[in-house]
Amino acid sequence: MKFEQLALIGCGLMGGSFALAMRRAGLVKRVVGYSKSPSTTERARQLGVIDVEAPSALLAVSGADIVLLAVPVAATESTFKAIRHLVRQDMLLMDVGSTKRDVVEAGRRALREQIGAFVPCHPIAGKEHGGIEHADADLYAGRQVVITPIERTLVAQLAQAEQVWKQLGSRVVKMSPEAHDATYAAVSHLPHMLAFAYMNGLMDQAQAARFMALAGSGFRDFSRIAASEPAVWRDILLANRQELLAQSRHFREALAQFERSVEAGDAKAVEELVRRARAARAPWRMGTGLED
Amino acid sequence: MKFEQLALIGCGLMGGSFALAMRRAGLVKRVVGYSKSPSTTERARQLGVIDVEAPSALLAVSGADIVLLAVPVAATESTFKAIRHLVRQDMLLMDVGSTKRDVVEAGRRALREQIGAFVPCHPIAGKEHGGIEHADADLYAGRQVVITPIERTLVAQLAQAEQVWKQLGSRVVKMSPEAHDATYAAVSHLPHMLAFAYMNGLMDQAQAARFMALAGSGFRDFSRIAASEPAVWRDILLANRQELLAQSRHFREALAQFERSVEAGDAKAVEELVRRARAARAPWRMGTGLED
Repeated sequence: MKFEQLALIGCGLMGGSFALAMRRAGLVKRVVGYSKSPSTTERARQLGVIDVEAPSALLAVSGADIVLLAVPVAATESTFKAIRHLVRQDMLLMDVGSTKRDVVEAGRRALREQIGAFVPCHPIAGKEHGGIEHADADLYAGRQVVITPIERTLVAQLAQAEQVWKQLGSRVVKMSPEAHDATYAAVSHLPHMLAFAYMNGLMDQAQAARFMALAGSGFRDFSRIAASEPAVWRDILLANRQELLAQSRHFREALAQFERSVEAGDAKAVEELVRRARAARAPWRMGTGLED
Repeated sequence: MKFEQLALIGCGLMGGSFALAMRRAGLVKRVVGYSKSPSTTERARQLGVIDVEAPSALLAVSGADIVLLAVPVAATESTFKAIRHLVRQDMLLMDVGSTKRDVVEAGRRALREQIGAFVPCHPIAGKEHGGIEHADADLYAGRQVVITPIERTLVAQLAQAEQVWKQLGSRVVKMSPEAHDATYAAVSHLPHMLAFAYMNGLMDQAQAARFMALAGSGFRDFSRIAASEPAVWRDILLANRQELLAQSRHFREALAQFERSVEAGDAKAVEELVRRARAARAPWRMGTGLED
């Protein structure tokens, strides 16, 4: 398996890392890139992440046999529309969006009969700092990639997508877009919303800066994801809002129970609640994945 | 400054690390240890953290010129009572508890006229795994130590305590027990309660194990503190419950605002809320401390 030309639409951390990894693995000859901001595309070329700058998403796709969409999820449908006239049944089209139901719906609407070429993907990878400057050929190595095919996905493309990610060192997990969105509402989107709300609750207080100056490693790790990209997370939280709000209800019930035990000074109940949380979290290791 | 004998009461991560650091810095000749569990004390001796096992807290203090209490905060008062007959005005007595108002109150009640020797301390340091096996001479190096003297603290002991921590490489910050507890309710105790409640809300769902198997680095960092020690955190959350519940109210208001914006699909409002959280968190660096 070797591709002639990768069209990279969205030259950020995720897209740039994919291009670097594909190139290093010898899976692609030429990378043509497009970003909404011309200065980003230029920077990607200067950094050697892409070979050629395209003036539009459509022109990036021209001549490509593999296309990666790496744009904020809310920009998926307009991007599909922009490229659909050049999407062919023998092309591999993938995305890296953190939500999948909305991406699949956008694909159905915008790609219509060409949707078979599209394999929805979500690599479970990222970095504290986004942007093409942080693109890294190792970003996907050892990470899980969730693929959420639909009934109209072509088996050839699905097999190709699996092979591509495996050659980049990722482990592939397949599930429905619905199962994906429920899962990540629970283990990613809710934690982000809680971390954002936690920081905002802190900033509502006059002493916030003084408090933060004295914070330690618990604060550091718990709040790390509150520094995530606003445009990216606006889209994710809204795209998956039903599942997110359902998860938040579970959380609020658990928090209310905790607060009642604390307020009542019920040492036995508080210890039991901490013990339950610890028993669930302590043995967890990242990337254990699902047994097939 | 060199001490003859350190009495270590509580041979866990915090206490053991202090003993190792004191010894390495050449600040103490001999370490006598006591833990509630004799097997822990024995293990501390086998590991070379302490020189001698004492059969009681009182006997550990016998002959000591420096005493460190490193027990769960709720055990502070009973420990003070156990040792008070050997607490002298020329001895340095410190603790490492994560709450300070309750510790100071316990000191007033149990130590009475001997309270001048007691300097309440809270080193902002820890590790994912507790226990004497993880004791580490470097635990306090480069970390902040909050000292919360009261009006009855003797200036000689206060100066000694500051010097000890500085020689272990820590940076000392002084504030009142009240200011301390408000600060750590905001940046430590609330994040712990939220992480515990988050894990419990997850475990309330039948698919929890499946969800967690697919979780990535956001989950890893956000939930890390949910694996903390139940007995330790039971005591901290209860000891500081008023400040903790006040912080939780700030959080719940911020969360409710977030949920309303998500539910309404208000992209501008959601982006603004994320942007505010990011602006507060992104520039933060651990241990910047307070300007004097």
